[in-house]
Amino acid sequence: MAALHARQRRFEVILVSHQAHIEKVQPVIDLAEQLGVNIRRVDGRELSTLAHGATHGGVIAICSAKPRFSPDQLPDLLANIPCPLLLLLEGIDDARNLGFTLRSAEALGAHAVLVKKHLWDFDETEVARPASGAYERLPLVQIESVELLQQLRRNGVRLLGCIAGARRTIYDADLTLPTIIAIGGEKRGISGAVRDICDEMISIPTLGEGTSLSLSHAGAIILAESLRQRTAVKLMRP
Amino acid sequence: MAALHARQRRFEVILVSHQAHIEKVQPVIDLAEQLGVNIRRVDGRELSTLAHGATHGGVIAICSAKPRFSPDQLPDLLANIPCPLLLLLEGIDDARNLGFTLRSAEALGAHAVLVKKHLWDFDETEVARPASGAYERLPLVQIESVELLQQLRRNGVRLLGCIAGARRTIYDADLTLPTIIAIGGEKRGISGAVRDICDEMISIPTLGEGTSLSLSHAGAIILAESLRQRTAVKLMRP
Repeated sequence: MAALHARQRRFEVILVSHQAHIEKVQPVIDLAEQLGVNIRRVDGRELSTLAHGATHGGVIAICSAKPRFSPDQLPDLLANIPCPLLLLLEGIDDARNLGFTLRSAEALGAHAVLVKKHLWDFDETEVARPASGAYERLPLVQIESVELLQQLRRNGVRLLGCIAGARRTIYDADLTLPTIIAIGGEKRGISGAVRDICDEMISIPTLGEGTSLSLSHAGAIILAESLRQRTAVKLMRP
Repeated sequence: MAALHARQRRFEVILVSHQAHIEKVQPVIDLAEQLGVNIRRVDGRELSTLAHGATHGGVIAICSAKPRFSPDQLPDLLANIPCPLLLLLEGIDDARNLGFTLRSAEALGAHAVLVKKHLWDFDETEVARPASGAYERLPLVQIESVELLQQLRRNGVRLLGCIAGARRTIYDADLTLPTIIAIGGEKRGISGAVRDICDEMISIPTLGEGTSLSLSHAGAIILAESLRQRTAVKLMRP
């Protein structure tokens, strides 16, 4: 449903199992018909051989991969957004964590997620499933160098690096301004190239003592704080 | 290292591969010797056949499962904690998400995590790995009914249910009081039995419009807010 609604993929055909619960698949069929996407009823076994895993619910779409945005499409993407909030993920190494991060990023008001191109090596299905529709809707931009970040900074977007131990916390930072939040992976953190151009480093307070947060949870916490701040100044609805 | 430090498991022997990088395994060997745990050097291939996956780093401990707390041990556990903060997870269905949740719960100041006993059906290794040591240290209590929750409520601990759409948000709630935070799973949310005895329902603000947060991310966000509030009133260190 999310993929059909988002209209970013090209649909070849949607296969619906004869054994599927009709009341569950009817909304998919209705929307597909409305959008002029072909539907074919097939045998349950035929469908299962095409599926990743067993939880397909009797519906499979044969469609193109979701297009990813290139850096030069970002200005257009942000043109109508008065106060952009972007999340830059460096070194995320797990498709499911990326999916969960996209889901929270969308729910908490991020306008796009930036991922370094050479770090993109994910099974799309593994990302899409935990993202619960956010993978279809939220723009995912592959960046090749820090040049895009510099360009955004020249246009007034601040780049904040989230690292453990920074004296300034997410609660001290003004997240209501146009902002890119950079979060690094478990092993290497934020890259030197990004660190060098950060306007500010901020941390999420924790108890310390050998405890830590995963990249995915850190992203959720900082975006929740940004939504809280933005709601308080009426930049966004609750 | 976390398992040795926590001293909750009974160690039979620690196997160290002849091929392991000595500088990496030396801290484990030193701590094991200090605690009187036997160490045996073995061939790398022997070790690999015993391991889950390939990322064992050349060390395997043969040890008992980590003991889980029973409800009647909880009062003792909380006896010296002036202002308990507990996380009740209902319907978590994924070992890795549980692991990540334990990791954040510890980092953000939860004193124990409660899980319904009949819902415990996890591969311990799959929980421990993403928990990054928190699985060894953070008490995990298996509860069988809501009776334990009622008992805690009679002792002045408030039970807050986190559900989407509740008018009162996590920012309106006073999380500096002794509190149990109940979070429900994706499919069924918080059970009726727990819902019926909640002192208050609270929500995490999101954009809505079909977006949502995973249980694991919701837990991280609410615990971060509780740590923020508790730090502000000096109940905890940053």
